[in-house]
Amino acid sequence: MSEIYTESLNRLIEEFGRLPGIGPKTAERLAFHILYAKTDEALAMAKAISDVKTKIKNCKICFNLSEEPVCKICSDNKRDKTIICVVEQPKDIINLEKTGSCRWLYHVLGGHIAPLEGIDADHLNITQLVSRVKEGGISEIVMATNPNLAGDGTALYLCSLLKNTGVKITRLARGLPTGSTIEFANAKILTDAITGRQQIE
Amino acid sequence: MSEIYTESLNRLIEEFGRLPGIGPKTAERLAFHILYAKTDEALAMAKAISDVKTKIKNCKICFNLSEEPVCKICSDNKRDKTIICVVEQPKDIINLEKTGSCRWLYHVLGGHIAPLEGIDADHLNITQLVSRVKEGGISEIVMATNPNLAGDGTALYLCSLLKNTGVKITRLARGLPTGSTIEFANAKILTDAITGRQQIE
Repeated sequence: MSEIYTESLNRLIEEFGRLPGIGPKTAERLAFHILYAKTDEALAMAKAISDVKTKIKNCKICFNLSEEPVCKICSDNKRDKTIICVVEQPKDIINLEKTGSCRWLYHVLGGHIAPLEGIDADHLNITQLVSRVKEGGISEIVMATNPNLAGDGTALYLCSLLKNTGVKITRLARGLPTGSTIEFANAKILTDAITGRQQIE
Repeated sequence: MSEIYTESLNRLIEEFGRLPGIGPKTAERLAFHILYAKTDEALAMAKAISDVKTKIKNCKICFNLSEEPVCKICSDNKRDKTIICVVEQPKDIINLEKTGSCRWLYHVLGGHIAPLEGIDADHLNITQLVSRVKEGGISEIVMATNPNLAGDGTALYLCSLLKNTGVKITRLARGLPTGSTIEFANAKILTDAITGRQQIE
C-alpha cells in the first residue's frame, strides 16, 4: 500500500505521525494539506521548524527560552529584580506570565530532582540559582515547582541550600482550585485548604 | 502574552495553527514537541515538508502524484494497460489501490466539472484522457468519480466525449455500503440497490 504514495509524501506522513497526538489518518490529512498548500506557505512552515531548533537557546541568566543571550524577561527593566521565581520548565513561565500578576524574574531548573529517573541535582540549573542569590540584591525566592512529590522534593532541597543566605523563601499557595467543587476535591487538597484558610473579614 | 514566547516559537505555533484541525492549544503542544525534539529529527520534518512541495509533480501520462516524469503505476509493467480508471483526485487512487483489487491504469481529472464554482471542462485533464483513448489499445474506461451530483455530471460529460471511440465505459457499482444497515439507508441508496440487484444463486 505505502508504495502508492510517492517517497516524499510517505516520509512526510511518517514525520507528522511522530508528533504527539497525531495518528496515521491525521498525519495523512496534514501531509495532503501541505501538498496542496501554496509553496511559500509550506516552505514557511519548514523554515519555522528549523528556526525553532537553530535559533532558540537558553537565557544565560535564568535559562528561559531566548533567541538572544539574555531573555526578554531578564532584560526587562520594569521588573522587580529582587524577586526570583523558581520554575521547573520554560512553559511554566508562560503560564505564570499569562496571569499578568508576575513582575518578578525567573529561574528555570530544567526539571525536578528524580533519583529513580537518574536526574539528580547536578542535572538541574541549581548552582546557577545559588550563585544568583549569593551575588546579592535578592530579597525573595518564590518556589513555583509543581505541587507534587517531585516538585515539592526539589523545592525542599533548594530550601536547604538557600536557608543560610537570609533570603525569604516562599511557595505558591495551595488550596481549592477556583471553579471546582468541594464535592470532588480530594483529602490532600482539602487539608491544604483547611490549613491555609484565610480571614475574609 | 505572546511576547513571552520567543519569535521563532511564536511563528511555529502560528504555522502549526494553520493546519486543518489543529487548534491553538495543539499548535502550542506540537511546537514545544519540536523545540524539545532532537535537532536532526526536527530538521528531518522541515526537509520532508519542503521536499513534498519541491519534488512531487504530476505524472505526465495520468496526472497522479509522482517524483518521476512517469508515475509508479504507469510504469508498472504488471498492470493491465487496456483499462483506465478515471478519478477526480490522486487521493482516490490511493484508496482504490488499498483494496488490492485494481491492476489497471488511472487518469486523474484534477476535480469535477462545477460551473457554479467556475470549474469547467477546460480546467480538468479531459483532453489528455481523450487523447489516451484515441491513441488506441484501451478496451475499458472505469468511471470512479464521486457518486454525487458533480461526480456523476462529470462522468456523463466524459461519456458523451468518448461514446464514439468504441471503448466500453463502466462505472463503479452503487448499492448498500457493506457493514451498514437497511434501516439507515436512504431512498436513493435503496433505489440503487434494488435496481442493481444481482442473482446470488
